[in-house]
Amino acid sequence: MADVTLHADERIDQLYSQDIQIIQSSQVFAFSLDAVLLGDFAQVAKGAKSQIVDLCAGNGAVGLFASAKTQGHITAVEIQPRLAEMAQRSVILNDLTQQMTVLNEDLLAITHQLPKDSVDTVLCNPPYFKDQPQSVKNPNPHLAIARHELSANLDQILAVTSDLLKMNGKAYFVHRPERLDDLFSAMAANRLAPKRMRFVHPKAQREANMVLIEMIKDGKRNGVRIMPPLVVYRDDGEYGEEVHTLLYGKHK
Amino acid sequence: MADVTLHADERIDQLYSQDIQIIQSSQVFAFSLDAVLLGDFAQVAKGAKSQIVDLCAGNGAVGLFASAKTQGHITAVEIQPRLAEMAQRSVILNDLTQQMTVLNEDLLAITHQLPKDSVDTVLCNPPYFKDQPQSVKNPNPHLAIARHELSANLDQILAVTSDLLKMNGKAYFVHRPERLDDLFSAMAANRLAPKRMRFVHPKAQREANMVLIEMIKDGKRNGVRIMPPLVVYRDDGEYGEEVHTLLYGKHK
Repeated sequence: MADVTLHADERIDQLYSQDIQIIQSSQVFAFSLDAVLLGDFAQVAKGAKSQIVDLCAGNGAVGLFASAKTQGHITAVEIQPRLAEMAQRSVILNDLTQQMTVLNEDLLAITHQLPKDSVDTVLCNPPYFKDQPQSVKNPNPHLAIARHELSANLDQILAVTSDLLKMNGKAYFVHRPERLDDLFSAMAANRLAPKRMRFVHPKAQREANMVLIEMIKDGKRNGVRIMPPLVVYRDDGEYGEEVHTLLYGKHK
Repeated sequence: MADVTLHADERIDQLYSQDIQIIQSSQVFAFSLDAVLLGDFAQVAKGAKSQIVDLCAGNGAVGLFASAKTQGHITAVEIQPRLAEMAQRSVILNDLTQQMTVLNEDLLAITHQLPKDSVDTVLCNPPYFKDQPQSVKNPNPHLAIARHELSANLDQILAVTSDLLKMNGKAYFVHRPERLDDLFSAMAANRLAPKRMRFVHPKAQREANMVLIEMIKDGKRNGVRIMPPLVVYRDDGEYGEEVHTLLYGKHK
């Protein structure tokens, strides 16, 4: 792997299951299980001519995880300069400069650079929380933008997703279950049909705290499939087999 | 229990967990696990002054199952005379004539008989399938109406549900996951906010084939909760503990 310079607050985290190294900083942004699960759930277009776009890319984790699944090109779009620069160094660190491009841009203007109706797969781990005046936000602006809809809201992000996608192109989002009503209305408003959903439960007897969703541009209505639930932790507090395998690879 | 006359094609099925007997006919209509799960999922208003309405009541199973959970009055609305009459005999059979009324009416006209904004809880196990010209329907008209949206579609049923409910009244529906997009758009169009959902999987590693959903009239958006999944069968093909208990009562 290539050498890159790390800032004082940074560390390199490794996803052992895929041999991917990612530059992280708890002061700026660190990927979490959400990004790992989204990377696994997404069925990215595989061919060498495929165009994949990761919106709200943060430090690039979702695109980096997806890189092993495709010969196509991945464009990571991130509005925060500090995060985009971290993502760029992770691309270099993993020798992926031929396959992956990082754009430090506002996704709301991204169709000035990426043609409409040109993308096969959109990936997105968006900010989860509405920008409500009364909501308590992280005083760290990097983390506030990653968590709250300060620079783009869900409807805007799905509008851009739909603009970018070819007909029958697919988008993969991870979000929180409480926003399901917003997700469905934003999909309906933007020519995106929900196709597969998977709910993530911290334990078998707990409510879901995450939803993974596949949508298709101009897809048929009334074709929603609910995958078997994903349970993160066993009752004894250890990772369940599926998550353990995603994080650390298969047991020998 | 009271004596009632059974027709030649009819049988009495017993829900052992609740000591409820229900007149069924495979030639006309027989309740299935859907109705049992809906009756269990629904948190019906308990008080003696509560008004509960069961729409698309069929042979009355959902209302009969719910009767043990409330002191309130239950009105079952069923468009098919033969089914409404069966439901009425089951009400007599279970000595519930004081608590439960069966109306043989088209739900689309039910606000002529039941005042708007008067109902605490609506229960509904609607027809699951769209009335599409090319769809194959059961040649038995009783079964065709119960399964296909021949007399009312989902949007119409949710419009009536919303009309009947008081502000903050709750509705409980069971439906098929593939219709989730229609469910969400019909809720949004009819002042109904989704609140709790539970997906039913035939086995742990299979896709869901049923969804139970609680909605609130004029409720807040972005409050959807996904309950722990319900798995019907164990890997060995026997009912799981939760469903076994619902059908047969607790193990001694």
